[in-house]
Amino acid sequence: MLEKRIRLKHLLDKVTDPDTACRHIQNGTNVFISGFTAGYPKLIPQALVRRAKDGDRFKINLFAGASTGDAVDGILAEAGLIAWRRPYMSNRGMREKINRGEIRFKDDHLSRLSAQVRDGGLGKAHVAVVEAIAITEKGHLIPSMSVGNTPTYVQEAEKIIIEISSEPPELEGIHDIFIPEDPPYRMPIPIYRSGDRIGKPSIEMDPNKVVAILYSREEDSCAVFNEPGTVSQRIAEHILDFVAHEIRHDRMPPALPWQSGVGDVANAVLSGFIDNDFFQNIDIYSEVLQDAVLDLIDLGKVRAASGSAMTLSHKARNRFFNEIYRYRDKIVLRPVEISNSPEVVRRLGVIAINTAIEVDIYGQVNSTHVMGSQLMNGIGGSGDFIRNGALSFIVTPSTAKGGKISAIVPMVSHVDHSEHSVDVVVTEHGLVDTRPLTPRQVAEQVIKRCAHPNYRDLLWDYYQQAIRASGGHEPHILSEAFSFHERFMATGDMQVR
Amino acid sequence: MLEKRIRLKHLLDKVTDPDTACRHIQNGTNVFISGFTAGYPKLIPQALVRRAKDGDRFKINLFAGASTGDAVDGILAEAGLIAWRRPYMSNRGMREKINRGEIRFKDDHLSRLSAQVRDGGLGKAHVAVVEAIAITEKGHLIPSMSVGNTPTYVQEAEKIIIEISSEPPELEGIHDIFIPEDPPYRMPIPIYRSGDRIGKPSIEMDPNKVVAILYSREEDSCAVFNEPGTVSQRIAEHILDFVAHEIRHDRMPPALPWQSGVGDVANAVLSGFIDNDFFQNIDIYSEVLQDAVLDLIDLGKVRAASGSAMTLSHKARNRFFNEIYRYRDKIVLRPVEISNSPEVVRRLGVIAINTAIEVDIYGQVNSTHVMGSQLMNGIGGSGDFIRNGALSFIVTPSTAKGGKISAIVPMVSHVDHSEHSVDVVVTEHGLVDTRPLTPRQVAEQVIKRCAHPNYRDLLWDYYQQAIRASGGHEPHILSEAFSFHERFMATGDMQVR
Ligand SMILES: CC(C)(COP(=O)(O)OP(=O)(O)OC[C@H]1O[C@@H](n2cnc3c(N)ncnc32)[C@H](O)[C@@H]1OP(=O)(O)O)[C@@H](O)C(=O)NCCC(=O)NCCS
Ligand SMILES: CC(C)(COP(=O)(O)OP(=O)(O)OC[C@H]1O[C@@H](n2cnc3c(N)ncnc32)[C@H](O)[C@@H]1OP(=O)(O)O)[C@@H](O)C(=O)NCCC(=O)NCCS
Repeated sequence: MLEKRIRLKHLLDKVTDPDTACRHIQNGTNVFISGFTAGYPKLIPQALVRRAKDGDRFKINLFAGASTGDAVDGILAEAGLIAWRRPYMSNRGMREKINRGEIRFKDDHLSRLSAQVRDGGLGKAHVAVVEAIAITEKGHLIPSMSVGNTPTYVQEAEKIIIEISSEPPELEGIHDIFIPEDPPYRMPIPIYRSGDRIGKPSIEMDPNKVVAILYSREEDSCAVFNEPGTVSQRIAEHILDFVAHEIRHDRMPPALPWQSGVGDVANAVLSGFIDNDFFQNIDIYSEVLQDAVLDLIDLGKVRAASGSAMTLSHKARNRFFNEIYRYRDKIVLRPVEISNSPEVVRRLGVIAINTAIEVDIYGQVNSTHVMGSQLMNGIGGSGDFIRNGALSFIVTPSTAKGGKISAIVPMVSHVDHSEHSVDVVVTEHGLVDTRPLTPRQVAEQVIKRCAHPNYRDLLWDYYQQAIRASGGHEPHILSEAFSFHERFMATGDMQVR
Repeated sequence: MLEKRIRLKHLLDKVTDPDTACRHIQNGTNVFISGFTAGYPKLIPQALVRRAKDGDRFKINLFAGASTGDAVDGILAEAGLIAWRRPYMSNRGMREKINRGEIRFKDDHLSRLSAQVRDGGLGKAHVAVVEAIAITEKGHLIPSMSVGNTPTYVQEAEKIIIEISSEPPELEGIHDIFIPEDPPYRMPIPIYRSGDRIGKPSIEMDPNKVVAILYSREEDSCAVFNEPGTVSQRIAEHILDFVAHEIRHDRMPPALPWQSGVGDVANAVLSGFIDNDFFQNIDIYSEVLQDAVLDLIDLGKVRAASGSAMTLSHKARNRFFNEIYRYRDKIVLRPVEISNSPEVVRRLGVIAINTAIEVDIYGQVNSTHVMGSQLMNGIGGSGDFIRNGALSFIVTPSTAKGGKISAIVPMVSHVDHSEHSVDVVVTEHGLVDTRPLTPRQVAEQVIKRCAHPNYRDLLWDYYQQAIRASGGHEPHILSEAFSFHERFMATGDMQVR
């Protein structure tokens, strides 16, 4: 059946098996794969692991759109097959190896990576391995559930391996593929509204570069979705109330599009729209689209939803595949350099909502490094949206690890986003709009409204001491700035016993 | 003579004296002034100070394009007349009051401020006070040496006070005034090359809002320019060599435009082009244009120079005014939301060069706060360019205060720009291209190549200890991260005696 998906017939000659195909990948090969939380190749990673188990010793440099599933990052890391990994990952096993220095990793702003690949900054694109639902008559590719950097990878690669996926062919038409010219010859990216289509439904490809085609019946390992917990719901409520209030008081226009990071809170915000009559005709200009987007489409509440990938739970996935025709008109999947484009994000005036590991009293944000040193996932697209959105929320539950960690700290142990780029800080306890405040006013408000009650006094003491000891525009006592973290590392609890 | 500059004749009725004019400014007035290192009003501030000396007690909220001279920020701060100041300043006296909490200050990304004023985020625009060289027949304004946020201030203000400056009327035609629509109705900003003009030569103004016009013969207090010192020259050489090398090896296209922050190094980089045959037909897409731009124009090396203001030394100023006709074709002065627009900066592929107070071994950058607490100037436009440039240099002399401070530290005491946004770290000792490196590799290289020799061992010890004690993707020992700063604060020297 999958043969039909290869509409450029002479490419049928390239159909082969994974073990044969993966011989194009050797020690030191730069492998550029499709995939952005979904839509990654699954057969080639398995074949590489088999080869390693059979005694072949090699390491590859692996570049994707963003994170992939256990089926790629997990098994390849475990087998010790990765030398370099960019630009983002979220796999536990891989993370451990990165933190031990066994895998080289650099996290990049996702919007920049394609251009860096085109200018050769990541080395030669030896082999692209991409999942696609079809190859067109002209030999172009129809990607699956994500676009990510695939258009650039396919354009730049010396060799291309394709995994034809059994996902519904009706996905065709959902993608909008556009590779901008690079500076100094770039023209405006002509997106004026979230749903605008500016490119083609397929990825242009030189069929002569195809070295192998595989048929795949493997599924993306589905995101596990919990119903939003109370903490996430509270955070979502604070955000929706605040935005509604700003719009009602004419401090912002209605109809700005929404971006919402990955994870529970992100999904909770969108779910919050379901029972909220104030917000209608919602535009979404985001990175990854999750289950809640389908619910909102079902309710007729979405004008357009743009992203670079869809990550759905198993249930939502079935629903989506069964009735793609209903969703396809509303959803656009774009290259990540477009979904996250600073130009477009700034132009559209995106309301950006992203999750932090910790935030400090002045609104500096740590998205990536636990206790300053241990990488969690990476910065991903958070900087693309936080820095350029019209209104930028940073959210976090007020505590982690059962209350033993305060997510509001005197000074964050690593900074990814500076106070200048963050507009509103939100936890389940409350929200502070930092825009009209001095850093000192921000500190007072964040301690009062966002911190967990168990940590308010400790934070207040630090802040008062800092004013006395150092003064300044943003009072800090450098010898005490990480006292919360040090206490946690010494005793397992940020609270004083 | 200056009467001729008021070409809409009925406005002649509004000509008055500063003391009368400044009565429109009272306690609590939000005052939005022109000015971006140059082009600020001079008479009204003096009049306000006189009034205060005469016993009137009041405070104003002051918003400009960026920093102004001593003639505004200096005297108003000294007289205790400022309640709030945004978005940037660089005045010593004002800085001290901000750091003591006596003046409220928040530093903003400059590209965002105009939009924030339009959406009401900075409060009502009670009075705009703007320097102009003329009022046109239609009652529009021709600004002087800067544009900054003036177009938006004039549009939003309830009342307008104009200081007609005696600067040469030939400045007319150098400005390019364009206010973009705000989201969700914004369209692309149609600049494709540095020199493109997309707006009008004057600022549209409702003449009915003009409450006073003054004739001014005051000059901008001129920037003091030193010939570039050896340290700045070295830094400039490293940068030009690196870029030439990248272009020769086809890793970046020729002809990307340059942005260069304010100060000695910035000027040294541009001066470096003078004797450099490799670079011709230079495009400048920057914020503030300094003396070196004129030298380069004289040599026929500039294709176009775009900025929001010109800050010239006294000598250069005379040269410029005497022969404006030669320079006007090459220079465009734009609103800061356009000169610093993330959209345009990313599209053009700007090579961004900005100065840091300190940089850490992983490439995190502090541009604003000395020893973590004391504000220096503010983030200014550095974030606009660093975050969106195609290639982003962060530069600093390797030491400050006669060697007692290392500008390369284990961890910066404040972060404005994260490692993800910084591509190349440069001191007089050398340069590290961080793009192809992991954080650990960055640390090794920065210590070896950028740090001052006196500090290399200390930094190396910290780094090695951090690997052993914490490991992780970005090894840090939180209790030791600020040891350099703590030593300096205790002993006056970051070196161990
Ligand atoms: C910040 C981020 C890690 C939060 O993820 P999440 O799934 O919402 O958050 P969780 O609450 O499940 O936290 C994840 C883990 O971090 C831990 N954690 C959270 N806050 C912590 C803190 N302050 N200190 C230490 N650990 C913390 C949690 O305990 C949890 O650990 P576990 O996996 O061992 O249980 C995630 O949003 C991220 O990687 N962001 C950066 C990239 C990004 O924003 N992408 C979207 C842009 S479009
Ligand atoms: C960072 C910045 C302050 C450097 O300014 P500069 O004029 O090039 O630098 P200088 O070497 O003269 O340093 C300025 C002062 O900071 C001090 N300083 C520099 N590095 C220091 C450090 N690491 N620790 C403590 N003090 C330091 C200097 O000693 C000097 O002090 P002084 O005025 O008492 O003599 C300035 O570039 C800035 O404000 N940048 C932020 C905004 C910006 O980048 N704008 C341009 C964007 S388009």
